[in-house]
Amino acid sequence: MEKLKVAVVGATGLAGQQFLAALVAHPWFEVAYLAASRRTAGKPYREALRDETGALQWFCQEPFPEKFGDFRVELAEELEVAKVDLVFTAIDAGPARELEPQYARQVPVISTASAFRYEEDVPIFIPAVNTDHDALLRVQQQRRGWKGFITPIPNCTTTGLAVTLKPLYDAFGLNFVVMTSLQAVSGAGRSPGVRALDILDNVLPFIPKEEEKVQTETQKILGRLEGDRIVPADFKVSCTCTRVPVLDGHTEAVFASLGRAAEVEEVKRAFEGFGGEFVALGLPSAPERMIAVHDDPFRPQPRLDRDAGGGITTTVGRIRLDDALPNGVKYLLVSHNTKMGAAKGALLVAEYLCQRGFIHPQA
Amino acid sequence: MEKLKVAVVGATGLAGQQFLAALVAHPWFEVAYLAASRRTAGKPYREALRDETGALQWFCQEPFPEKFGDFRVELAEELEVAKVDLVFTAIDAGPARELEPQYARQVPVISTASAFRYEEDVPIFIPAVNTDHDALLRVQQQRRGWKGFITPIPNCTTTGLAVTLKPLYDAFGLNFVVMTSLQAVSGAGRSPGVRALDILDNVLPFIPKEEEKVQTETQKILGRLEGDRIVPADFKVSCTCTRVPVLDGHTEAVFASLGRAAEVEEVKRAFEGFGGEFVALGLPSAPERMIAVHDDPFRPQPRLDRDAGGGITTTVGRIRLDDALPNGVKYLLVSHNTKMGAAKGALLVAEYLCQRGFIHPQA
Amino acid sequence: MEKLKVAVVGATGLAGQQFLAALVAHPWFEVAYLAASRRTAGKPYREALRDETGALQWFCQEPFPEKFGDFRVELAEELEVAKVDLVFTAIDAGPARELEPQYARQVPVISTASAFRYEEDVPIFIPAVNTDHDALLRVQQQRRGWKGFITPIPNCTTTGLAVTLKPLYDAFGLNFVVMTSLQAVSGAGRSPGVRALDILDNVLPFIPKEEEKVQTETQKILGRLEGDRIVPADFKVSCTCTRVPVLDGHTEAVFASLGRAAEVEEVKRAFEGFGGEFVALGLPSAPERMIAVHDDPFRPQPRLDRDAGGGITTTVGRIRLDDALPNGVKYLLVSHNTKMGAAKGALLVAEYLCQRGFIHPQA
Amino acid sequence: MEKLKVAVVGATGLAGQQFLAALVAHPWFEVAYLAASRRTAGKPYREALRDETGALQWFCQEPFPEKFGDFRVELAEELEVAKVDLVFTAIDAGPARELEPQYARQVPVISTASAFRYEEDVPIFIPAVNTDHDALLRVQQQRRGWKGFITPIPNCTTTGLAVTLKPLYDAFGLNFVVMTSLQAVSGAGRSPGVRALDILDNVLPFIPKEEEKVQTETQKILGRLEGDRIVPADFKVSCTCTRVPVLDGHTEAVFASLGRAAEVEEVKRAFEGFGGEFVALGLPSAPERMIAVHDDPFRPQPRLDRDAGGGITTTVGRIRLDDALPNGVKYLLVSHNTKMGAAKGALLVAEYLCQRGFIHPQA
Repeated sequence: MEKLKVAVVGATGLAGQQFLAALVAHPWFEVAYLAASRRTAGKPYREALRDETGALQWFCQEPFPEKFGDFRVELAEELEVAKVDLVFTAIDAGPARELEPQYARQVPVISTASAFRYEEDVPIFIPAVNTDHDALLRVQQQRRGWKGFITPIPNCTTTGLAVTLKPLYDAFGLNFVVMTSLQAVSGAGRSPGVRALDILDNVLPFIPKEEEKVQTETQKILGRLEGDRIVPADFKVSCTCTRVPVLDGHTEAVFASLGRAAEVEEVKRAFEGFGGEFVALGLPSAPERMIAVHDDPFRPQPRLDRDAGGGITTTVGRIRLDDALPNGVKYLLVSHNTKMGAAKGALLVAEYLCQRGFIHPQA
Repeated sequence: MEKLKVAVVGATGLAGQQFLAALVAHPWFEVAYLAASRRTAGKPYREALRDETGALQWFCQEPFPEKFGDFRVELAEELEVAKVDLVFTAIDAGPARELEPQYARQVPVISTASAFRYEEDVPIFIPAVNTDHDALLRVQQQRRGWKGFITPIPNCTTTGLAVTLKPLYDAFGLNFVVMTSLQAVSGAGRSPGVRALDILDNVLPFIPKEEEKVQTETQKILGRLEGDRIVPADFKVSCTCTRVPVLDGHTEAVFASLGRAAEVEEVKRAFEGFGGEFVALGLPSAPERMIAVHDDPFRPQPRLDRDAGGGITTTVGRIRLDDALPNGVKYLLVSHNTKMGAAKGALLVAEYLCQRGFIHPQA
Repeated sequence: MEKLKVAVVGATGLAGQQFLAALVAHPWFEVAYLAASRRTAGKPYREALRDETGALQWFCQEPFPEKFGDFRVELAEELEVAKVDLVFTAIDAGPARELEPQYARQVPVISTASAFRYEEDVPIFIPAVNTDHDALLRVQQQRRGWKGFITPIPNCTTTGLAVTLKPLYDAFGLNFVVMTSLQAVSGAGRSPGVRALDILDNVLPFIPKEEEKVQTETQKILGRLEGDRIVPADFKVSCTCTRVPVLDGHTEAVFASLGRAAEVEEVKRAFEGFGGEFVALGLPSAPERMIAVHDDPFRPQPRLDRDAGGGITTTVGRIRLDDALPNGVKYLLVSHNTKMGAAKGALLVAEYLCQRGFIHPQA
Repeated sequence: MEKLKVAVVGATGLAGQQFLAALVAHPWFEVAYLAASRRTAGKPYREALRDETGALQWFCQEPFPEKFGDFRVELAEELEVAKVDLVFTAIDAGPARELEPQYARQVPVISTASAFRYEEDVPIFIPAVNTDHDALLRVQQQRRGWKGFITPIPNCTTTGLAVTLKPLYDAFGLNFVVMTSLQAVSGAGRSPGVRALDILDNVLPFIPKEEEKVQTETQKILGRLEGDRIVPADFKVSCTCTRVPVLDGHTEAVFASLGRAAEVEEVKRAFEGFGGEFVALGLPSAPERMIAVHDDPFRPQPRLDRDAGGGITTTVGRIRLDDALPNGVKYLLVSHNTKMGAAKGALLVAEYLCQRGFIHPQA
């Protein structure tokens, strides 16, 4: 099978780099174009990554993909999407609002930006969690008259929470959820990102707009598709989002009031049983399991667990009953914010939509 | 007035060092004896702090108190408490169980250990929070036939939580409380303490026994003294305690379901109004305010706020209503774990008990 | 005595903030004006420090000086220097090149910028090291026809090195010096400063232009004033400058080939004897000693020693003979980069020049 | 070919764990026995790694090798070495002094301990650097009447230095070398290792005995085998060893006075040309190149470069001439202290000695 041609927009940023690292040897997708803003457009990709001192600003743990080093960076506004089969966008919400519809008129757009997450005809996909929301893409295409569509992935802090709440919601129901996140610095991107001066020997107690995103997105992702709209899940989510001196991997302490009482073992089985059907689809980026559960009370730890399943698996530990809440259960999770929570998560969505026929060669 | 003579037991450990730093120029107390285990007993204090390479293991930010450098370290088991008016203990629960009653037969003992916290006739004091529990000390003395008494301070993670819950409980009542802590490494002491290898670029999701302590102690501290016993407060507390790469200062994200609905401004006023009476007593270590409230959403931060009020003040920020919980309110706090949460907190208890006549010169 | 009126230019940056923290209660100087670039000019100082999210960007460990909160930030280009007796500048080299001469036409300018450091009639002062270079200021005034003058302090990495080399040079002579620095992140300022993403669990092996500055400035500072010029010291300096995950305090590992053989004790005495005359002047910001020497081989450490002498004292340790070099000696030093190496160092220069009559009330 | 049977002694420590991680799927070696001290002997390996709280103390980035989880840990003193073909030891110098000769009477011992490094008939191997010292092993066997032999690898800080000095020494000669190390915390092992309390926001300026080791070992490793002894290289080495808040990867700033003047390009070519012959042997753990040279001045960085070549390659950057020294050149290097500097380096030595016939099936 010939590979599908993809463009990566916002290729110089941290999430864009993660896309390239993940796509460098992908069996189904071939990067055809890189695009970015006027600041770097026209330069070879390698040069576009240099800062004023000449240093290569490549942030992924994977080596710089030399294969793309000489690609000319296109101006995002002028990207000729007719030449590709799929666009990945890794840009801020502002430009996304302009550019993504422009692309989607012709081709599918899978986005890490928040710009369209809250529109009625736009699903927020997480692989294995709400893949059945894909029918909404047809509604979107029809309503907007687009050949393509826009489908954003969630905020990286939502991802781990929604992945772990899904099996609980299905098995036991949920009354409400309280969550405190301990987020990695890579979640803030690279310009300016988090200053060392602010985070060394410190915790930052606030991440602007993060908590609202998590609360709203979780309800939508776990909502039910009814006809041409998603009815949000009816449990409440409350969270406090903090930043800690960790490079990658968001840790979340979750307290959930279930719809009915459950034993720890039942909860554990729900987590472990989750995602088997999705994994069985055999998509190239899918891990062995969507959720890994630890019995060791010192796990999960972001440094040790963030790369589980190639950074796609969510790791859960310290499952305990919580007698302060009605049918309470509590646990911690670690989710890789720039892998499952960004580029690799988006890539897995793309693979799923390919297999389901939503993405295909432009003929 | 002549100063009261005090002994510091466990003087070589981190909390013991903090006691000495706080007592070096105290207006009411004079350190008369230092004591420790057999490992260092008999050595001059300065030498007792050296490790196998000769390095002085002094961990406080204050300079090493040269004044105590030549004090001979007594063996804790053989400390002649008849020569002092008060003993501060900063030792593990195991030895505390043996040593503290031995001392308390003759003199008051103020302890950072957990050994006696959960006994019926033992109050767990926090200055300004439950100073009225002092009447229980008379019960303890009578029941046990001691001239002195044992009064432990709480676990350092309990302290900030209880300080901030007290004004909420008094003003609005409490249904239940959910808390996630982001604790500093100094809370684990010095031998072995937290390994750099474990915490750099990482979060540890578990601190053995910590959560149970916080849950039980908070209920006892906010309980009501009825006759010769404390009736624990009847709200439930659930917490998850984690360790983060921060030197000093515990951060806690609190979610509380109040007994009645309250506006953010009311909650803020409750915090700000707290402790005024206690501060007015004019004790030497008392800060200007027991709780400081920030409007800046980026506060509190452990590095910036841990030393507020000489490390005694608890700093609160991000007060928000929480519509996921009945009458919900949420906030963050920072409390200095080795100051208010250990030596300086104990010292403030001692000052209070002095003023109230519980501690006095042995005649 | 009425206080001298000073302006702080670049008041919103990290070094500017340090100036304000140091000047808030100064016995001789009164801050009359704050100035900055067009980005913040016109705002009250407190507002000028807020970032896009409203957070107050105050980085000093000292509390925000409320006293200056309502000061209107002047546009640096339009600062009316006739109204002040002295200007402190804490701005980049580019704007410094334009602004400093404009100010110096009328009043003395003490600068943390590198713009004029390498001009022939400009001394680079370090208190106690080369205060005798002050005569060059008269040359500068005459040659340029200015009422004031410009006198920059050195790069913060030069400072600790030059302070410790001075007594060695005077006592033993110097053939050459090799130095590796382990620099704190605060040395890079606040916009953008060092990214957490770049420095957590890492070392950066390069700081652009830093090594050249250290090499050139050290020779000039330890040079000899001959008539109207400084003859640079004739020993060579070679250095490698790195950045480490430390907030404040530069550590430097120095290897020096002395002009003649010396014992460790002689070297120690040379360090300890240094600066006594300067300290005896009794300037308000002067510490008890300019250099503190530790025998404990685990010192100096940046976290423990950076604040020695209010951040002015340079701490030295691990003095050893070095048999790999002719008359070799090696040691480590810690110097506070944003105190002695920036604002407080400049302030101490100002105090000295005041006492010597170079700075005085504009009549 | 049947695999050689190996025993790993000190299997519970950090270096021991690294051996197991490296041996888990080795094509030539099969782990037959694990041994450790009395503290854990008799337990299954998995249990031997648990601390008092039940947490698995596995520190490698590689997952815990389940394959060894049920291996019974042997008591090191009672290890039956007749059943294996090779012993790797990862223990302290004290026990090594007793145990290694006991093993070496029968089988080859490759050691990470310093116990025998400085004996006349014992080579300190670094792959590609001084493999020709292997002839000394025959001398050792004969002199001591052993069937096996002891061959230690160097201190982890020596390794990167010696690897990079070797091509310089061969090509240009060396007068003297000055080096400052910025060492990772994993170099201190796990019990107690470096305390977080000591290293967060800090640098430790002293690592006991480290500097002497580096100085002595470097001269021996680069020495010339003459008959039955090694004549140490005659250039002097001076170093200052520090600890920084980095998990893995030692950074070293090197200043070398060469025997003759060289251009940067010549130096670079010497580095790049190094080890080609050794790599061509095709040993299983050998990397593509022994030294990688970066032109980007921001490299090497420990976080980005420590894993080059599977942690075996030494990465060099910032090659500059140094006019402060006669024929001076300076550069930085990063070497993985627990891979090339410990287990994987020892494994590569073992592979080499296998191929050369020094290690072979017993029987």
